[in-house]
Amino acid sequence: MSPDDSRHCAKALRMRPGDAIRLTDGAGTLADASLLSVAPDGCVAEVTARREVPPRTLRLHLAVAPTKNADRMEWLVEKTVELGVERITFVVCEHSERRRIDLDRMHRLAVAALKQSQTAWLPELQMADFKDFIAEQAATDAARYVAWCDDDNTRQFADADFAAGTVLLLIGPEGDFSPVEIDLCRTHGYVEVKLGSRRLRTETAALFGCVIVASHN
Amino acid sequence: MSPDDSRHCAKALRMRPGDAIRLTDGAGTLADASLLSVAPDGCVAEVTARREVPPRTLRLHLAVAPTKNADRMEWLVEKTVELGVERITFVVCEHSERRRIDLDRMHRLAVAALKQSQTAWLPELQMADFKDFIAEQAATDAARYVAWCDDDNTRQFADADFAAGTVLLLIGPEGDFSPVEIDLCRTHGYVEVKLGSRRLRTETAALFGCVIVASHN
Repeated sequence: MSPDDSRHCAKALRMRPGDAIRLTDGAGTLADASLLSVAPDGCVAEVTARREVPPRTLRLHLAVAPTKNADRMEWLVEKTVELGVERITFVVCEHSERRRIDLDRMHRLAVAALKQSQTAWLPELQMADFKDFIAEQAATDAARYVAWCDDDNTRQFADADFAAGTVLLLIGPEGDFSPVEIDLCRTHGYVEVKLGSRRLRTETAALFGCVIVASHN
Repeated sequence: MSPDDSRHCAKALRMRPGDAIRLTDGAGTLADASLLSVAPDGCVAEVTARREVPPRTLRLHLAVAPTKNADRMEWLVEKTVELGVERITFVVCEHSERRRIDLDRMHRLAVAALKQSQTAWLPELQMADFKDFIAEQAATDAARYVAWCDDDNTRQFADADFAAGTVLLLIGPEGDFSPVEIDLCRTHGYVEVKLGSRRLRTETAALFGCVIVASHN
Protein backbone atom coordinates (compact mmCIF):
# COMPACT_ATOMS: atom_id res chain seq x y z
CA MET A 1 0.00 0.00 0.00
CA SER A 2 1.11 3.59 -0.71
CA PRO A 3 2.98 5.57 1.97
CA ASP A 4 -0.01 7.90 2.47
CA ASP A 5 -2.51 5.10 2.87
CA SER A 6 -0.12 3.10 5.08
CA ARG A 7 0.40 6.06 7.39
CA HIS A 8 -3.35 6.64 7.50
CA CYS A 9 -4.04 2.98 8.41
CA ALA A 10 -1.27 2.81 11.01
CA LYS A 11 -1.48 6.25 12.64
CA ALA A 12 -4.92 7.79 12.12
CA LEU A 13 -7.04 4.64 12.06
CA ARG A 14 -4.70 2.61 14.37
CA MET A 15 -5.49 -0.54 12.39
CA ARG A 16 -3.95 -3.89 13.25
CA PRO A 17 -3.09 -7.06 11.35
CA GLY A 18 -6.27 -8.97 10.59
CA ASP A 19 -8.40 -5.83 10.19
CA ALA A 20 -10.52 -5.66 7.05
CA ILE A 21 -10.07 -2.90 4.46
CA ARG A 22 -11.47 -2.14 1.02
CA LEU A 23 -9.29 -1.33 -1.95
CA THR A 24 -9.91 0.06 -5.42
CA ASP A 25 -7.68 0.74 -8.41
CA GLY A 26 -9.94 3.55 -9.62
CA ALA A 27 -10.43 1.65 -12.88
CA GLY A 28 -13.36 -0.60 -12.06
CA THR A 29 -12.01 -3.01 -9.47
CA LEU A 30 -13.15 -3.08 -5.85
CA ALA A 31 -11.53 -5.55 -3.46
CA ASP A 32 -12.01 -6.67 0.11
CA ALA A 33 -8.70 -7.26 1.82
CA SER A 34 -7.23 -8.19 5.17
CA LEU A 35 -4.20 -6.45 6.64
CA LEU A 36 -1.20 -8.79 7.06
CA SER A 37 1.20 -6.24 8.51
CA VAL A 38 0.77 -2.63 9.60
CA ALA A 39 3.54 -0.01 9.57
CA PRO A 40 3.49 3.73 8.82
CA ASP A 41 5.98 3.27 5.98
CA GLY A 42 4.17 0.37 4.31
CA CYS A 43 1.19 -1.86 5.14
CA VAL A 44 0.71 -5.21 3.44
CA ALA A 45 -2.78 -6.53 2.73
CA GLU A 46 -4.10 -9.72 1.21
CA VAL A 47 -7.06 -9.48 -1.17
CA THR A 48 -9.87 -11.82 -0.07
CA ALA A 49 -12.53 -10.95 -2.64
CA ARG A 50 -12.57 -8.97 -5.83
CA ARG A 51 -15.46 -7.39 -7.70
CA GLU A 52 -15.48 -5.71 -11.11
CA VAL A 53 -17.77 -2.70 -11.51
CA PRO A 54 -18.50 -2.40 -15.23
CA PRO A 55 -18.07 1.02 -16.85
CA ARG A 56 -21.31 2.88 -17.52
CA THR A 57 -22.96 2.39 -20.87
CA LEU A 58 -23.34 6.17 -21.16
CA ARG A 59 -20.11 7.92 -20.22
CA LEU A 60 -19.66 11.65 -19.67
CA HIS A 61 -16.64 13.64 -20.71
CA LEU A 62 -17.18 16.98 -18.99
CA ALA A 63 -15.27 19.91 -20.49
CA VAL A 64 -15.62 22.92 -18.24
CA ALA A 65 -14.02 26.34 -18.12
CA PRO A 66 -12.35 26.75 -14.71
CA THR A 67 -14.17 29.22 -12.44
CA LYS A 68 -12.38 32.22 -10.98
CA ASN A 69 -12.91 30.74 -7.51
CA ALA A 70 -10.93 27.49 -7.38
CA ASP A 71 -13.04 26.11 -4.49
CA ARG A 72 -15.95 25.73 -6.86
CA MET A 73 -13.95 23.48 -9.16
CA GLU A 74 -12.70 21.42 -6.21
CA TRP A 75 -16.26 20.93 -5.09
CA LEU A 76 -17.27 19.98 -8.63
CA VAL A 77 -14.51 17.36 -8.88
CA GLU A 78 -15.67 15.78 -5.62
CA LYS A 79 -19.26 15.57 -6.89
CA THR A 80 -18.28 14.21 -10.31
CA VAL A 81 -16.55 11.28 -8.60
CA GLU A 82 -19.79 10.41 -6.81
CA LEU A 83 -21.91 10.90 -9.91
CA GLY A 84 -19.55 8.91 -12.10
CA VAL A 85 -17.88 11.07 -14.75
CA GLU A 86 -15.31 9.47 -17.04
CA ARG A 87 -13.16 12.48 -17.74
CA ILE A 88 -12.95 16.17 -16.89
CA THR A 89 -11.09 18.60 -19.10
CA PHE A 90 -10.57 22.09 -17.73
CA VAL A 91 -10.84 24.19 -20.86
CA VAL A 92 -9.32 27.65 -20.95
CA CYS A 93 -11.61 29.91 -22.98
CA GLU A 94 -11.30 33.45 -24.28
CA HIS A 95 -13.37 34.81 -21.37
CA SER A 96 -11.78 32.61 -18.71
CA GLU A 97 -10.60 34.60 -15.73
CA ARG A 98 -8.67 31.60 -14.41
CA ARG A 99 -6.16 30.04 -16.77
CA ARG A 100 -4.50 27.52 -14.45
CA ILE A 101 -5.72 24.58 -12.39
CA ASP A 102 -3.56 22.63 -9.97
CA LEU A 103 -4.21 19.20 -11.50
CA ASP A 104 -2.20 17.39 -8.80
CA ARG A 105 -4.39 18.90 -6.12
CA MET A 106 -7.54 18.07 -8.08
CA HIS A 107 -6.31 14.49 -8.50
CA ARG A 108 -5.73 14.16 -4.73
CA LEU A 109 -9.25 15.48 -4.07
CA ALA A 110 -10.69 13.03 -6.58
CA VAL A 111 -8.86 10.13 -4.91
CA ALA A 112 -10.15 11.23 -1.49
CA ALA A 113 -13.70 11.41 -2.87
CA LEU A 114 -13.25 7.99 -4.47
CA LYS A 115 -12.31 6.48 -1.10
CA GLN A 116 -15.15 8.21 0.70
CA SER A 117 -17.82 7.29 -1.80
CA GLN A 118 -16.49 3.73 -2.24
CA THR A 119 -16.92 3.92 -5.98
CA ALA A 120 -14.56 2.18 -8.38
CA TRP A 121 -13.92 4.68 -11.15
CA LEU A 122 -11.64 7.69 -10.88
CA PRO A 123 -12.23 10.43 -13.47
CA GLU A 124 -9.28 11.35 -15.67
CA LEU A 125 -8.34 15.01 -15.27
CA GLN A 126 -6.65 17.16 -17.87
CA MET A 127 -6.28 20.76 -18.96
CA ALA A 128 -6.48 22.20 -22.47
CA ASP A 129 -6.77 25.38 -24.45
CA PHE A 130 -10.19 25.73 -26.09
CA LYS A 131 -9.06 25.58 -29.72
CA ASP A 132 -6.66 22.69 -29.15
CA PHE A 133 -9.40 20.83 -27.34
CA ILE A 134 -11.91 21.23 -30.18
CA ALA A 135 -9.31 20.04 -32.68
CA GLU A 136 -8.35 17.04 -30.51
CA GLN A 137 -11.99 16.04 -30.02
CA ALA A 138 -12.74 16.22 -33.75
CA ALA A 139 -11.07 12.81 -34.03
CA THR A 140 -13.28 11.10 -31.42
CA ASP A 141 -16.72 9.61 -31.88
CA ALA A 142 -18.21 11.28 -28.79
CA ALA A 143 -21.68 12.84 -29.11
CA ARG A 144 -20.87 16.54 -28.69
CA TYR A 145 -22.93 19.15 -26.86
CA VAL A 146 -22.25 22.74 -25.90
CA ALA A 147 -24.31 24.47 -23.21
CA TRP A 148 -24.53 28.20 -23.52
CA CYS A 149 -26.88 31.07 -22.75
CA ASP A 150 -28.60 31.66 -26.08
CA ASP A 151 -32.16 32.89 -25.56
CA ASP A 152 -33.17 31.74 -29.05
CA ASN A 153 -32.24 28.16 -28.35
CA THR A 154 -34.79 26.03 -26.51
CA ARG A 155 -33.28 22.58 -26.98
CA GLN A 156 -32.75 20.98 -23.57
CA PHE A 157 -29.78 18.71 -22.83
CA ALA A 158 -32.17 16.60 -20.72
CA ASP A 159 -34.22 15.82 -23.83
CA ALA A 160 -31.24 14.65 -25.91
CA ASP A 161 -31.51 11.23 -27.47
CA PHE A 162 -28.54 9.62 -25.75
CA ALA A 163 -27.06 6.45 -27.23
CA ALA A 164 -24.50 4.22 -25.49
CA GLY A 165 -20.98 5.62 -25.68
CA THR A 166 -19.35 8.89 -24.69
CA VAL A 167 -21.16 12.19 -24.36
CA LEU A 168 -18.98 15.29 -24.44
CA LEU A 169 -20.53 18.33 -22.75
CA LEU A 170 -18.84 21.73 -22.97
CA ILE A 171 -19.63 24.29 -20.25
CA GLY A 172 -18.37 27.85 -20.64
CA PRO A 173 -16.79 30.35 -18.26
CA GLU A 174 -18.53 33.02 -16.15
CA GLY A 175 -18.60 35.38 -19.17
CA ASP A 176 -19.87 32.58 -21.47
CA PHE A 177 -18.19 31.46 -24.70
CA SER A 178 -17.06 34.08 -27.20
CA PRO A 179 -18.83 34.28 -30.60
CA VAL A 180 -15.69 32.82 -32.21
CA GLU A 181 -15.79 29.84 -29.84
CA ILE A 182 -19.49 29.21 -30.51
CA ASP A 183 -18.81 29.33 -34.26
CA LEU A 184 -16.02 26.80 -33.84
CA CYS A 185 -18.40 24.51 -31.94
CA ARG A 186 -20.96 24.83 -34.72
CA THR A 187 -18.51 23.94 -37.46
CA HIS A 188 -17.48 20.89 -35.42
CA GLY A 189 -21.00 19.51 -35.03
CA TYR A 190 -21.66 20.40 -31.40
CA VAL A 191 -25.37 20.38 -30.54
CA GLU A 192 -26.29 23.60 -28.71
CA VAL A 193 -28.30 22.92 -25.56
CA LYS A 194 -29.73 24.54 -22.45
CA LEU A 195 -29.58 23.21 -18.92
CA GLY A 196 -33.02 24.02 -17.55
CA SER A 197 -34.63 27.42 -17.90
CA ARG A 198 -32.47 29.50 -15.54
CA ARG A 199 -29.00 30.91 -15.91
CA LEU A 200 -26.68 28.79 -13.77
CA ARG A 201 -23.20 29.33 -12.42
CA THR A 202 -20.51 27.42 -14.29
CA GLU A 203 -20.09 24.69 -11.66
CA THR A 204 -23.85 24.31 -11.20
CA ALA A 205 -24.29 23.95 -14.94
CA ALA A 206 -21.56 21.29 -14.99
CA LEU A 207 -23.25 19.41 -12.19
CA PHE A 208 -26.62 19.69 -13.94
CA GLY A 209 -25.09 17.94 -16.95
CA CYS A 210 -23.56 15.22 -14.74
CA VAL A 211 -26.93 14.47 -13.13
CA ILE A 212 -28.74 14.29 -16.48
CA VAL A 213 -26.22 11.75 -17.78
CA ALA A 214 -26.19 9.81 -14.48
CA SER A 215 -29.99 9.59 -14.62
CA HIS A 216 -29.66 7.70 -17.93
CA ASN A 217 -27.45 4.98 -16.44
CA MET B 1 -33.50 49.61 1.51
CA SER B 2 -32.41 47.43 4.44
CA PRO B 3 -29.51 48.56 6.69
CA ASP B 4 -27.34 45.67 5.41
CA ASP B 5 -27.95 46.44 1.74
CA SER B 6 -27.61 50.18 2.33
CA ARG B 7 -24.24 49.73 4.03
CA HIS B 8 -23.14 47.43 1.21
CA CYS B 9 -24.14 49.98 -1.46
CA ALA B 10 -22.58 52.91 0.34
CA LYS B 11 -19.41 51.39 1.80
CA ALA B 12 -18.40 48.29 -0.15
CA LEU B 13 -19.67 49.23 -3.61
CA ARG B 14 -19.25 53.03 -3.11
CA MET B 15 -22.37 53.65 -5.16
CA ARG B 16 -23.67 57.14 -5.82
CA PRO B 17 -27.06 58.70 -6.53
CA GLY B 18 -28.10 57.89 -10.11
CA ASP B 19 -26.39 54.47 -10.11
CA ALA B 20 -28.52 51.58 -11.31
CA ILE B 21 -29.34 48.60 -9.07
CA ARG B 22 -31.55 45.53 -9.33
CA LEU B 23 -34.03 44.57 -6.65
CA THR B 24 -36.08 41.47 -5.90
CA ASP B 25 -38.63 40.60 -3.25
CA GLY B 26 -37.75 36.90 -3.44
CA ALA B 27 -41.36 36.17 -4.39
CA GLY B 28 -41.30 36.55 -8.15
CA THR B 29 -40.64 40.25 -8.71
CA LEU B 30 -37.44 41.63 -10.22
CA ALA B 31 -37.04 45.39 -10.55
CA ASP B 32 -34.55 47.78 -12.08
CA ALA B 33 -34.05 50.83 -9.90
CA SER B 34 -32.03 53.99 -9.67
CA LEU B 35 -30.48 55.22 -6.42
CA LEU B 36 -31.89 58.56 -5.27
CA SER B 37 -29.81 58.90 -2.12
CA VAL B 38 -26.96 56.86 -0.67
CA ALA B 39 -26.15 56.57 3.03
CA PRO B 40 -24.83 53.66 5.11
CA ASP B 41 -27.93 53.77 7.33
CA GLY B 42 -30.48 53.86 4.51
CA CYS B 43 -30.37 54.21 0.73
CA VAL B 44 -33.43 55.28 -1.24
CA ALA B 45 -34.04 53.93 -4.74
CA GLU B 46 -36.70 54.54 -7.34
CA VAL B 47 -38.01 51.58 -9.32
CA THR B 48 -37.76 52.24 -13.06
CA ALA B 49 -38.96 48.90 -14.43
CA ARG B 50 -40.58 45.86 -12.92
CA ARG B 51 -40.79 42.29 -14.20
CA GLU B 52 -42.75 39.37 -12.79
CA VAL B 53 -41.10 35.94 -13.01
CA PRO B 54 -43.92 33.38 -12.92
CA PRO B 55 -43.58 30.48 -10.49
CA ARG B 56 -42.55 27.20 -12.11
CA THR B 57 -45.28 24.86 -13.25
CA LEU B 58 -43.47 21.99 -11.50
CA ARG B 59 -42.41 23.01 -8.00
CA LEU B 60 -40.10 21.06 -5.71
CA HIS B 61 -40.51 20.75 -1.98
CA LEU B 62 -37.23 19.18 -0.88
CA ALA B 63 -37.32 17.42 2.49
CA VAL B 64 -33.80 16.46 3.48
CA ALA B 65 -32.22 15.08 6.64
CA PRO B 66 -29.49 17.50 7.75
CA THR B 67 -25.97 16.13 7.22
CA LYS B 68 -23.52 15.86 10.11
CA ASN B 69 -21.31 18.39 8.36
CA ALA B 70 -23.28 21.67 8.24
CA ASP B 71 -21.19 23.04 5.33
CA ARG B 72 -22.79 20.49 3.05
CA MET B 73 -26.27 21.81 3.86
CA GLU B 74 -25.12 25.40 3.35
CA TRP B 75 -23.76 24.45 -0.04
CA LEU B 76 -27.02 22.69 -0.86
CA VAL B 77 -29.12 25.73 0.06
CA GLU B 78 -27.00 27.91 -2.22
CA LYS B 79 -27.49 25.49 -5.12
CA THR B 80 -31.24 25.10 -4.54
CA VAL B 81 -31.66 28.87 -4.93
CA GLU B 82 -30.02 28.72 -8.34
CA LEU B 83 -31.93 25.62 -9.40
CA GLY B 84 -35.25 27.00 -8.18
CA VAL B 85 -36.64 25.02 -5.25
CA GLU B 86 -39.87 26.20 -3.65
CA ARG B 87 -39.30 24.95 -0.14
CA ILE B 88 -36.70 23.06 1.88
CA THR B 89 -37.64 21.22 5.05
CA PHE B 90 -34.78 19.92 7.17
CA VAL B 91 -36.25 16.71 8.52
CA VAL B 92 -34.80 15.14 11.65
CA CYS B 93 -34.87 11.35 11.25
CA GLU B 94 -34.15 8.45 13.60
CA HIS B 95 -30.63 8.04 12.17
CA SER B 96 -29.88 11.76 11.94
CA GLU B 97 -26.58 12.65 13.55
CA ARG B 98 -27.41 16.35 13.35
CA ARG B 99 -30.68 17.43 14.95
CA ARG B 100 -30.39 21.20 14.64
CA ILE B 101 -29.97 23.63 11.75
CA ASP B 102 -29.38 27.35 12.15
CA LEU B 103 -32.31 28.47 10.00
CA ASP B 104 -31.40 32.17 10.31
CA ARG B 105 -27.95 31.47 8.92
CA MET B 106 -29.42 29.34 6.14
CA HIS B 107 -31.86 32.13 5.30
CA ARG B 108 -29.02 34.65 5.07
CA LEU B 109 -27.10 32.30 2.75
CA ALA B 110 -30.19 31.84 0.60
CA VAL B 111 -30.66 35.61 0.32
CA ALA B 112 -26.99 36.03 -0.66
CA ALA B 113 -27.36 33.32 -3.31
CA LEU B 114 -30.56 34.98 -4.56
CA LYS B 115 -28.72 38.26 -5.06
CA GLN B 116 -25.77 36.60 -6.77
CA SER B 117 -27.82 34.48 -9.11
CA GLN B 118 -30.30 37.29 -9.86
CA THR B 119 -33.24 34.95 -9.57
CA ALA B 120 -36.58 36.06 -8.19
CA TRP B 121 -37.70 33.25 -5.92
CA LEU B 122 -36.35 32.58 -2.44
CA PRO B 123 -36.98 29.06 -1.07
CA GLU B 124 -38.90 28.82 2.19
CA LEU B 125 -36.83 27.10 4.86
CA GLN B 126 -38.21 25.15 7.79
CA MET B 127 -37.31 22.39 10.19
CA ALA B 128 -39.46 19.42 11.31
CA ASP B 129 -39.38 16.10 13.06
CA PHE B 130 -39.91 13.20 10.63
CA LYS B 131 -43.23 11.95 12.01
CA ASP B 132 -44.70 15.43 12.38
CA PHE B 133 -43.65 16.20 8.84
CA ILE B 134 -45.31 13.11 7.38
CA ALA B 135 -48.52 13.92 9.26
CA GLU B 136 -48.46 17.56 8.15
CA GLN B 137 -47.87 16.60 4.51
CA ALA B 138 -50.74 14.11 4.51
CA ALA B 139 -53.08 17.09 4.13
CA THR B 140 -51.37 18.47 1.00
CA ASP B 141 -51.88 17.42 -2.61
CA ALA B 142 -48.16 17.19 -3.39
CA ALA B 143 -46.96 14.17 -5.40
CA ARG B 144 -44.82 12.36 -2.80
CA TYR B 145 -41.54 10.52 -3.38
CA VAL B 146 -39.01 9.01 -1.01
CA ALA B 147 -35.46 8.23 -2.19
CA TRP B 148 -33.72 5.46 -0.33
CA CYS B 149 -31.15 2.74 -0.86
CA ASP B 150 -33.28 -0.33 -1.51
CA ASP B 151 -31.53 -2.71 -3.88
CA ASP B 152 -34.83 -4.34 -4.84
CA ASN B 153 -36.30 -1.11 -6.08
CA THR B 154 -35.40 -0.04 -9.60
CA ARG B 155 -37.87 2.81 -10.12
CA GLN B 156 -35.98 5.96 -11.03
CA PHE B 157 -37.09 9.42 -9.88
CA ALA B 158 -35.99 10.70 -13.32
CA ASP B 159 -38.60 8.48 -14.98
CA ALA B 160 -41.51 9.70 -12.84
CA ASP B 161 -44.54 10.98 -14.67
CA PHE B 162 -44.51 14.52 -13.31
CA ALA B 163 -47.67 16.62 -13.56
CA ALA B 164 -47.88 20.35 -12.89
CA GLY B 165 -47.99 21.15 -9.18
CA THR B 166 -45.77 20.37 -6.22
CA VAL B 167 -43.43 17.41 -6.00
CA LEU B 168 -42.31 16.44 -2.51
CA LEU B 169 -39.03 14.53 -2.41
CA LEU B 170 -37.75 13.02 0.85
CA ILE B 171 -34.00 12.38 1.17
CA GLY B 172 -32.70 10.44 4.18
CA PRO B 173 -29.71 10.89 6.50
CA GLU B 174 -26.23 9.33 6.17
CA GLY B 175 -27.50 6.13 7.82
CA ASP B 176 -30.63 6.09 5.59
CA PHE B 177 -34.23 5.97 6.85
CA SER B 178 -35.18 3.48 9.56
CA PRO B 179 -37.55 0.62 8.68
CA VAL B 180 -40.26 2.36 10.73
CA GLU B 181 -39.81 5.54 8.72
CA ILE B 182 -39.99 3.67 5.41
CA ASP B 183 -43.19 1.95 6.56
CA LEU B 184 -44.69 5.31 7.48
CA CYS B 185 -43.84 6.61 3.99
CA ARG B 186 -45.49 3.56 2.44
CA THR B 187 -48.72 3.98 4.38
CA HIS B 188 -48.79 7.63 3.31
CA GLY B 189 -48.51 6.91 -0.40
CA TYR B 190 -44.91 7.92 -1.00
CA VAL B 191 -43.49 6.47 -4.22
CA GLU B 192 -40.11 4.83 -3.52
CA VAL B 193 -37.47 5.92 -6.02
CA LYS B 194 -33.78 5.77 -6.77
CA LEU B 195 -31.55 8.63 -7.88
CA GLY B 196 -29.32 7.02 -10.50
CA SER B 197 -27.52 3.74 -9.97
CA ARG B 198 -24.90 4.75 -7.39
CA ARG B 199 -25.14 5.41 -3.70
CA LEU B 200 -24.91 9.17 -3.22
CA ARG B 201 -24.16 11.36 -0.23
CA THR B 202 -27.22 13.03 1.26
CA GLU B 203 -26.55 16.46 -0.25
CA THR B 204 -25.64 15.01 -3.64
CA ALA B 205 -28.87 13.01 -3.66
CA ALA B 206 -30.81 16.18 -2.80
CA LEU B 207 -29.14 18.04 -5.62
CA PHE B 208 -29.81 15.16 -8.01
CA GLY B 209 -33.52 15.52 -7.25
CA CYS B 210 -33.39 19.31 -7.76
CA VAL B 211 -31.78 18.91 -11.19
CA ILE B 212 -34.32 16.30 -12.31
CA VAL B 213 -37.21 18.61 -11.38
CA ALA B 214 -35.50 21.66 -12.88
CA SER B 215 -34.98 19.75 -16.13
CA HIS B 216 -38.79 19.40 -16.40
CA ASN B 217 -39.39 23.15 -16.25
